[in-house]
Amino acid sequence: MEPWERASRRVLSRTLTLAHGSGGRETAEIIEKIILAFIPDDLKRVEGGTGTDILDDSALIPVGEGYIAVTSDSYTVDPLFFPGGSIGVLAASGAINDLLMSGARPIAVLDDIIAVEGFPIETLSRVVYDFERVLVENRVALIGGDFKVVPKHEGPQLVIATTGIGYTEHPIIDTRIRDGDKIIVSGHVGDHGAAVLSARGAFGLKLEIKSDVKPLTDLMIPLHEKYHEYIHAAGDPTRGGLAMLLNEWAKKNGIAIAILEDAIPIHEEVKSYSELLGIDPLSLASEGVAVLAVEPSMADEIVEFMRSRGYRHATIIGEARSPRSEQYKGLVIARTSAGGYRIVEEPSGEIVPRIC
Amino acid sequence: MEPWERASRRVLSRTLTLAHGSGGRETAEIIEKIILAFIPDDLKRVEGGTGTDILDDSALIPVGEGYIAVTSDSYTVDPLFFPGGSIGVLAASGAINDLLMSGARPIAVLDDIIAVEGFPIETLSRVVYDFERVLVENRVALIGGDFKVVPKHEGPQLVIATTGIGYTEHPIIDTRIRDGDKIIVSGHVGDHGAAVLSARGAFGLKLEIKSDVKPLTDLMIPLHEKYHEYIHAAGDPTRGGLAMLLNEWAKKNGIAIAILEDAIPIHEEVKSYSELLGIDPLSLASEGVAVLAVEPSMADEIVEFMRSRGYRHATIIGEARSPRSEQYKGLVIARTSAGGYRIVEEPSGEIVPRIC
Repeated sequence: MEPWERASRRVLSRTLTLAHGSGGRETAEIIEKIILAFIPDDLKRVEGGTGTDILDDSALIPVGEGYIAVTSDSYTVDPLFFPGGSIGVLAASGAINDLLMSGARPIAVLDDIIAVEGFPIETLSRVVYDFERVLVENRVALIGGDFKVVPKHEGPQLVIATTGIGYTEHPIIDTRIRDGDKIIVSGHVGDHGAAVLSARGAFGLKLEIKSDVKPLTDLMIPLHEKYHEYIHAAGDPTRGGLAMLLNEWAKKNGIAIAILEDAIPIHEEVKSYSELLGIDPLSLASEGVAVLAVEPSMADEIVEFMRSRGYRHATIIGEARSPRSEQYKGLVIARTSAGGYRIVEEPSGEIVPRIC
Repeated sequence: MEPWERASRRVLSRTLTLAHGSGGRETAEIIEKIILAFIPDDLKRVEGGTGTDILDDSALIPVGEGYIAVTSDSYTVDPLFFPGGSIGVLAASGAINDLLMSGARPIAVLDDIIAVEGFPIETLSRVVYDFERVLVENRVALIGGDFKVVPKHEGPQLVIATTGIGYTEHPIIDTRIRDGDKIIVSGHVGDHGAAVLSARGAFGLKLEIKSDVKPLTDLMIPLHEKYHEYIHAAGDPTRGGLAMLLNEWAKKNGIAIAILEDAIPIHEEVKSYSELLGIDPLSLASEGVAVLAVEPSMADEIVEFMRSRGYRHATIIGEARSPRSEQYKGLVIARTSAGGYRIVEEPSGEIVPRIC
């Protein structure tokens, strides 16, 4: 049997489903069993750096005193324009935020654009304008990319793949969470997911809610400068939302994460919309929110600092715990509003496809 | 009028055509008038580096004594498997070759994969295997990427965007061509384009020809080590073929390039197939060929060296000339087999869509 056959038989399904691309459990399965199947461990990173060995927000390549940080993501959001943003804003902000979450200062991006035959040039121009406006406002250079056109079809009309390049002397690597670390979010979660879903007219409902998509440069650069030694992990809860991010952290660090549901800032509208759709709002994507795991003694000061920078809803939502019992390792446990406890699962199933 | 409207009106067409993605004149128009419309000059590169200001094979970011080289391209070839290769081999080789053409040693790649719902997991696995085999053979690390699934549609079933990262202390920047420089090709041109076209069964003809797709590491690393100070430009003639590459060089350097048609190695089959299709074989893509502009006094030695490394058909095909008359600047002129002269135009029109 050929190696690619052997790898594919380890996946339960014979064909890809939308769930495989939702950023939840099924995506993790494809990445582990197929995408990383033929790469030996010593080629999962550059010597002295990080890469697909730990699958952090950015890969790190050592240079001199510091590291070049690199990240790459593709964007296929439907619709291309939604309340609060567009695929252009998303593709630029996403790359910038991934760099910031690694403790890096974003310096440049490259963009590969694939459009369908017949796509209006004015719409392309508007998307490019949105994309480049974010770059200009954040002083990030556009240093390369690619442009392709594919024959007319009913599928995604525009896809952007963005690569971001940054630099840091103090990387934030998400495998450094310790017992007692406080978990902080910078603002309301789930707005992006809810806004895109609503823009699709799911359930015939139009929400007032806008996507939170934005680069977090104004928050993360000063925060990192002042507090980097106390920040043990940082991430943006995009595909799979807060639920996916915290599950990844719990697994990577062999810890449990305990959160208070009531402490998590979620807009009322997002909450009731999620109930209606029967989904956990914690699995809805945010595109302008930072989640941090920080030294407990510094948590209050860091929250204060975030609030003073305009992130008024920044707050502590829980903490990391080194559980005595093996069975709690890798779990995210929420104390519910009703006073009970529930396990916050890794999202699975289709969740919200083509959210980013 | 909004800036994106103003930009879009500078393009003649109102909607995208396949020609806009063929890598010829129309692609250049979209890149100039739309893709780079809203980026100020100082954000087209990182301070001390290069980027969309010169649109070379890779962008350069200065670090310490050298440069990090970065390149990004998307691949949408149809069919996914063709004689001599697959989208996986292509996506890995393409990134590696772009780095090599900038004089950089490839160190790592990131890949964003977008597949359609219903895509067979075994086929995905085979593409990933092909991709990673090239990385392993060339000791290049896979340090990041992304995986998405889009709803079922009749368009491209699989798209890969690859970012390549390399390092060099002696970059090859294609704006350094001088009067008299010899133009060298490393082997037969146009095989990839002809093989893909033939795999589609265009004209009901099946050629014996295989794609030349391969990483040029075994050629470019030793060549660069020994001769970098004599290599004034290097490129791989992918989309738009040799015709596009030489036209770009002529324009960027304000020179004329004179070539001898008879000197260009082209397989007989590719030649007659091109005639049948009514296209210039010089506009057919190669994916495993290097083109160099070198110091004239070293040209013969360099060709000898290339041949000794297994590139038996390496040969001088022409030279750069600083024309006395302005009207010849930026032109590529070929002496034809019949003994006359013709201008080798920048390819335009659809040429061969979805060739890479």
